[in-house]
Amino acid sequence: MTRIARFRNQDGTCLYGLMLENDTLQIIKGDIFGEWKPTDETIPLASVRLMAPVEPPNIIAIGLNYRGHAEETGKPLPERPLIFLKATSALCGPEDHIMLPKVAPNEVDCECELAIIIGRKARNVSPNDALDYVLGYTCANDVSARDCQKRLDLQWARAKSFDTFAPLGPWIETDLDPDEAPICRRMNGEVMQSSNTNDLIFSCRELISYISHSMTLLPGTVIMTGTPSGVGFTRNPPIFIRPGDVIEVEIEGIGILRNTVVAEE
Amino acid sequence: MTRIARFRNQDGTCLYGLMLENDTLQIIKGDIFGEWKPTDETIPLASVRLMAPVEPPNIIAIGLNYRGHAEETGKPLPERPLIFLKATSALCGPEDHIMLPKVAPNEVDCECELAIIIGRKARNVSPNDALDYVLGYTCANDVSARDCQKRLDLQWARAKSFDTFAPLGPWIETDLDPDEAPICRRMNGEVMQSSNTNDLIFSCRELISYISHSMTLLPGTVIMTGTPSGVGFTRNPPIFIRPGDVIEVEIEGIGILRNTVVAEE
Repeated sequence: MTRIARFRNQDGTCLYGLMLENDTLQIIKGDIFGEWKPTDETIPLASVRLMAPVEPPNIIAIGLNYRGHAEETGKPLPERPLIFLKATSALCGPEDHIMLPKVAPNEVDCECELAIIIGRKARNVSPNDALDYVLGYTCANDVSARDCQKRLDLQWARAKSFDTFAPLGPWIETDLDPDEAPICRRMNGEVMQSSNTNDLIFSCRELISYISHSMTLLPGTVIMTGTPSGVGFTRNPPIFIRPGDVIEVEIEGIGILRNTVVAEE
Repeated sequence: MTRIARFRNQDGTCLYGLMLENDTLQIIKGDIFGEWKPTDETIPLASVRLMAPVEPPNIIAIGLNYRGHAEETGKPLPERPLIFLKATSALCGPEDHIMLPKVAPNEVDCECELAIIIGRKARNVSPNDALDYVLGYTCANDVSARDCQKRLDLQWARAKSFDTFAPLGPWIETDLDPDEAPICRRMNGEVMQSSNTNDLIFSCRELISYISHSMTLLPGTVIMTGTPSGVGFTRNPPIFIRPGDVIEVEIEGIGILRNTVVAEE
């Protein structure tokens, strides 16, 4: 277990640290995408604000990538990974709120996802070598305004890119088997989605390889690998998120990404 | 006329400079999105390599935004701006080549576009105030693999995001009337597209305002505003780009963005 967290210190500086067992962060010196080492300095987790663990150059996301979710949407299984992009300005951290946008507050839905954090530049890599390019994994929530996605817009980009629609965290776990990770989402404590990454249609290795044949994956790139069945819009009646709701994405071996929903003021 | 260019010096450093009349760059000190001023130091344009004029946090692009192009594709005029995203890793500069990707080399098409460079953080701004958030304008080419866009993929993201599919430059012009700029694209000297931004369905002011109500526009964000009629895939027979082709995007008042096409090795 090696957990790398990014946090804002009380003096406003932004640092990386290793999570220790006793809710303490051991401050890291250097570049987590290059040379780094832990220092002797520690700081209590309670005294800092956890941030999204990277500032990605791109957030690449995959649609319809769990068998269960593809079935519930009534869509055929995709022949190749369904790639879309989320704006990097949508990023938020584990201590931020998910904001229902004024222009589309009514049909906002959540999707729990395993996120890959690319550690070094990857271009044309094979599935076999793909995991060598990974720094680690974290929890993600692919928040989506379904009215924009399904009715108003021709492309998904806006529906998936409102500010705060890409919660990420709480930290990067570098030791995880991405092919066998239990994943779930709770809403106000109730389980909404529950699956395992072994239900992924395209595995993490396959996704990295496939995408790297189209575009260079730069260090810090986030790949959200798709969501299992149980999302809000497929239910009858649909369940969308409302101010005050608490959304948790939990991946066993990583931790819990917890965000509260607020309305845009 | 104020032209801000980004370039790589012979010692490898990356700098900004003001274009002077005599093909000379006057080196800029500071942050072009904050405080900056020209220094006394100049350098001949011929001795440097021009780069894409920004490293954007997001590349936001607009589909079907010229009346002429909406008509040629047989699509109804959009009711609201059609937003999509291009990966920032697709960025290339005015001295780079457009690379036909190995996995999709056969139906690559070009689109000349006026690109807006956002100068300061914009959120929920009105059309009237929108241009106050603009640093300037440059030429863009929204390169697209039509096989991926039209047949293979469900979303446009990959088709628009292959490496080098977002040429940008040659520099940022801060003094331009974005509502009245002649724009054209040539392929090996022959005019393929020719129009004026006065044919835009949603003007630059309207685009900035609309997008800023969905997502925060960070400094350096690029908005590609759409392309006029004459793109390759609407022709009979279609015209796609091939290795050796020279593609020029020219906007009067800015300059010429010229890129040569090569095959991926």
